[in-house]
Amino acid sequence: MNAFAGQHVLSLNQYGRADLELLFDTADEVGRELAKGDVRRDLDGKILMSAFFDKSTRTRLAHETAMLRLGGTVSGFADAEVTRASGSTQESSDDVFRMLALYGDVIVTRHPVTGEPARVSESMDNALVINAGDGTGEHPTQALVDLYTMRQRFGSIDGLTIALVNDLRMRCTRSLLRGLRRYDCTVRCVAARGMHMDPVLRAEVEGAGRTITFHDDLVGLLPELDVVYSSPTVAAELPEDAVPRPAAGELPLSRELLEAAGKDSLTVMHPLPRKEELPVDVDDTPYNGYFQQAANGITVRMALLRLMLGEPDAGRSAA
Amino acid sequence: MNAFAGQHVLSLNQYGRADLELLFDTADEVGRELAKGDVRRDLDGKILMSAFFDKSTRTRLAHETAMLRLGGTVSGFADAEVTRASGSTQESSDDVFRMLALYGDVIVTRHPVTGEPARVSESMDNALVINAGDGTGEHPTQALVDLYTMRQRFGSIDGLTIALVNDLRMRCTRSLLRGLRRYDCTVRCVAARGMHMDPVLRAEVEGAGRTITFHDDLVGLLPELDVVYSSPTVAAELPEDAVPRPAAGELPLSRELLEAAGKDSLTVMHPLPRKEELPVDVDDTPYNGYFQQAANGITVRMALLRLMLGEPDAGRSAA
Amino acid sequence: MNAFAGQHVLSLNQYGRADLELLFDTADEVGRELAKGDVRRDLDGKILMSAFFDKSTRTRLAHETAMLRLGGTVSGFADAEVTRASGSTQESSDDVFRMLALYGDVIVTRHPVTGEPARVSESMDNALVINAGDGTGEHPTQALVDLYTMRQRFGSIDGLTIALVNDLRMRCTRSLLRGLRRYDCTVRCVAARGMHMDPVLRAEVEGAGRTITFHDDLVGLLPELDVVYSSPTVAAELPEDAVPRPAAGELPLSRELLEAAGKDSLTVMHPLPRKEELPVDVDDTPYNGYFQQAANGITVRMALLRLMLGEPDAGRSAA
Repeated sequence: MNAFAGQHVLSLNQYGRADLELLFDTADEVGRELAKGDVRRDLDGKILMSAFFDKSTRTRLAHETAMLRLGGTVSGFADAEVTRASGSTQESSDDVFRMLALYGDVIVTRHPVTGEPARVSESMDNALVINAGDGTGEHPTQALVDLYTMRQRFGSIDGLTIALVNDLRMRCTRSLLRGLRRYDCTVRCVAARGMHMDPVLRAEVEGAGRTITFHDDLVGLLPELDVVYSSPTVAAELPEDAVPRPAAGELPLSRELLEAAGKDSLTVMHPLPRKEELPVDVDDTPYNGYFQQAANGITVRMALLRLMLGEPDAGRSAA
Repeated sequence: MNAFAGQHVLSLNQYGRADLELLFDTADEVGRELAKGDVRRDLDGKILMSAFFDKSTRTRLAHETAMLRLGGTVSGFADAEVTRASGSTQESSDDVFRMLALYGDVIVTRHPVTGEPARVSESMDNALVINAGDGTGEHPTQALVDLYTMRQRFGSIDGLTIALVNDLRMRCTRSLLRGLRRYDCTVRCVAARGMHMDPVLRAEVEGAGRTITFHDDLVGLLPELDVVYSSPTVAAELPEDAVPRPAAGELPLSRELLEAAGKDSLTVMHPLPRKEELPVDVDDTPYNGYFQQAANGITVRMALLRLMLGEPDAGRSAA
Repeated sequence: MNAFAGQHVLSLNQYGRADLELLFDTADEVGRELAKGDVRRDLDGKILMSAFFDKSTRTRLAHETAMLRLGGTVSGFADAEVTRASGSTQESSDDVFRMLALYGDVIVTRHPVTGEPARVSESMDNALVINAGDGTGEHPTQALVDLYTMRQRFGSIDGLTIALVNDLRMRCTRSLLRGLRRYDCTVRCVAARGMHMDPVLRAEVEGAGRTITFHDDLVGLLPELDVVYSSPTVAAELPEDAVPRPAAGELPLSRELLEAAGKDSLTVMHPLPRKEELPVDVDDTPYNGYFQQAANGITVRMALLRLMLGEPDAGRSAA
């Protein structure tokens, strides 16, 4: 058995280095199957339930189409407004998720309340939960996609120098850092004004013996970096009245800055959607890692679903 | 041929006792298949259309996942707002359902207008309609789930004493009573203030030779009851300005009251969603029949779809 | 290879007469398969993404169920409000469609901006786009359904006299005219007040050597017509404040008028949804061609998807 089989996906803290490498090997295998147009349909008969209490396009559709490509089927809701799970007839999360667990084999949920996917998973014994973003908590599948893209691009995450820039309060940053702790890499942080990292999260990374440093200026760092990872300025998970709101373009990357760094392997990553913080003129440069990252959004989630729900030896063949 | 094959599902009045027992035998068979993880995919190639003009989570998803587990597929809408079937460009129900009948083999519809599913079904010859709740009319599939749960729990519905409590104006109550008439059982009713049963419905039950009595107090009845069936206080199908609105918790069941009745087989049923009328501390007692009822929401609808759309001898093997 | 294989569907201008006839032959084949209840599932493993930025019921569901009947699967969104593709976190169309192209094999999109489906398709190399209505541009699949219905009803479109009535500014009119240019037919136009045809479109038809004439009165034309094609008065694609709005019933067809024309083969067509411009008492007359047209909405789109995505020789067997 592997660390994913029959397990919820709630936080990057669940996975050691060997677990991540197993997932990435499985993603390589899925990628080869996709390239050949011959994907093993090992989730035939399984049902994925989307339960999105907050808006999403790409995270929901990436999970749904990953399931469809593996032969499974999909149901659920993209908008809690069409359900009784919101509004004046609101029922408890416990009752809603107990119901969803009857209907699906795996429940992919985005929820405004931090920790809610983990809480409801505790009493769930006949379905698995994938946390697709919980409040200011985690967004683990995004981080798995991000880490895989780094491995795919550089061969290994060990030895990389990675800058996290822009809004360091976001859940994708938290998940990514918890994954990076498993590798021998160096993390530089450049927060936009007022969007600094939670000191508890910083302590986690340092406790793991990894180097994490904080900077005011991205430009000077560029020549030593392998990866610039920009969070969105959209900050969908922050309350509407959060102060400060990210100021679009406060930390703009630009084609000129990237070229001036003089390092062809320098890779820009971004989970999308983007605003001014990531200009479109970077799209057709060698620095563009975010389109590959977007494509991996399917591959890695296919690998994850296969390991979670597939035959007990599904992971073994990839190892 | 059975009473379900090629037939719409509009009202519990359509079914005699033998029909109900055939459905429940088929549900037993489906339950065994689900337990073995080996469900016969006899609806491969069939399409279910969801057409929900009123909000629903569990009724819609239960039908959709029932169809998916039988190998069929699903399309439609969860929210009439995304269609032209509402708003200023509203087209007639006749045109909408004529269209849906071209697209799907079975149309599951919730509609605010009482009798609308039955009316549109009259001129429909290439698809079947399942009434998933029409105004203050019926909610037949819920009642089929409820009756099956009683049979599963007690072996037979004959001989049971069943109290219907809370809001007796609701469509699930109407459907359930029309099913209970087929069995030799006793019905006690305890309405919350102002939420009394339609006298015409009462006359239907009495006309069928069944005992139905009305009471002000649930507590005194508990020792003689087998089933306490509480309707929701949510009353989604009532207009927003209906008077009186159910007062949450007006007829509260409680763990203490149930324990004081001194009867381990006493079963609490509730179609969910719930509010204060069904406290969560009943959940982990032997009185909890509503989680079993929720799980049967899939099993019974799978049996129903199989009998409606499956091979002509689909029901025979279960008989 | 045929004109549909691996190609986007953006405008009727893409298709010559032979292309249209190939599609219609394939639709005949699909119709025979549907009648026998034995449809070739040649799109097994393919995914259709619905991306509706404007409301639709029938166009979306017709495409989705066409895909399901061919063995494919469906995901996407019926309402851009549930995505980040709208509102304050709006991302660019380019980014949204680049994402959708990763998820699906074919993207069916309705978009408020004229030309947007064509524009985003230019840089798309791993998925196909079907324009399901773009602003005041085209609605090509509707026109393909319309043309097929004429051929099915009369054996050939050549030689027909067709009146286009009501709102001649609509995208379905534009697509239909661009298809009719390929046939030796006569087009009469009767616009409702202020809803006249774009002179550029008129010049296109005349440039193709087809006869197109404009009239104020439909009644006098009826005896010489084979087809009366009424556009909706709903005008969903026009801005809310467009002047003039169609006045419902300004150009009413009626059973009496049709009967007075004394020609049993006279066929009324309408893409639906309808308002007063098409009275329900025409429904059960021999003039009713719009129910056949609605049914063809599935058949023709199945043929189209099969030619676009099926095996390279999918179209050959029908030729």
